[in-house]
Amino acid sequence: MGTSDTTAPDVEHDPTLEPDVFARGCTSRLVLQDVTGRWGALALGALHQGPARFNALRRRVDGVSEKMLAQTLQALERDGFVLRDVQATIPPRVEYRLTPLGTTVAERLVDLIELLEGAMPEVTAAQQAYDGR
Amino acid sequence: MGTSDTTAPDVEHDPTLEPDVFARGCTSRLVLQDVTGRWGALALGALHQGPARFNALRRRVDGVSEKMLAQTLQALERDGFVLRDVQATIPPRVEYRLTPLGTTVAERLVDLIELLEGAMPEVTAAQQAYDGR
Repeated sequence: MGTSDTTAPDVEHDPTLEPDVFARGCTSRLVLQDVTGRWGALALGALHQGPARFNALRRRVDGVSEKMLAQTLQALERDGFVLRDVQATIPPRVEYRLTPLGTTVAERLVDLIELLEGAMPEVTAAQQAYDGR
Repeated sequence: MGTSDTTAPDVEHDPTLEPDVFARGCTSRLVLQDVTGRWGALALGALHQGPARFNALRRRVDGVSEKMLAQTLQALERDGFVLRDVQATIPPRVEYRLTPLGTTVAERLVDLIELLEGAMPEVTAAQQAYDGR
C-alpha cells in the first residue's frame, strides 16, 4: 500500500500508529484474544511442554471440544505462534509445535499460569471473604 | 471439610490436589479465565497504570460496555486482584486499584501485552502469508 493525501485515513491499519491493545480497532487486541482467550492460553501452555499431535493436545487441554481446539490451533497458526507440521507418512502424521515467537509468548503465559496456580490459596480465601460479606 | 473413606472423592475441591489449569474442574482455570478473558486482561492492564474511577477505566478499555466492565471488575475483586475503594465523600467517590497480588498478575500481563504489541509486524506478516496460501 502506498500513501496518498486523498485517501481517507484507515485508523485500523495506519502504519504510523503504534499497536495498542487498548484501542478498539487495533489488530493487536485480536491477537491478544487469540493468545489469552478461553482455550488459546491453555493450548499454548500445553504446546510449551513440547510438540504434540491433535489428540494428545486434546487430552492435555481437558474439556476442550474437537471443534474448539481446531479453531484455536488454526488462529494460533495464522498468527505465527504455532506450526502445523504434516509428515509425509501413510497415514500422514500431523504434529503441532510452537514457533520461536510462539515459544516466547508461551513462556510468558506459563509464568502467569504458575503464578496463578501458586496464588490459589490466596485467591480462594479472597473469594470466600467476598462471598461471605 | 474433613476427609472420610466413605465420601466420594470431590475432584474439584480435593485439598490434596495441586491447582492445575489444564484440569477441567480446577478452580484455577476459572481464575485464569477471569484474568485473561475478553476484558480481564485489558482491565488489569489499565489498572496497572494506576488507580482509576469506573468511567476513566471505561475510556481506557476502549469498546467495553458498562455492564461488561462492571462484571469484569466484580470478578477481579472477588478473586482478590482488585480493590473497590469507596471514599466517604458526597457523592461517594469509588476508585478501583490493584491489590499486591493483582499488581504481580498485571505485571505479567503487561509483559505479555508489550511482547505482542512489539511482535505485531511479525504477526501481521504471518497472517498475510497464511491468508494468501
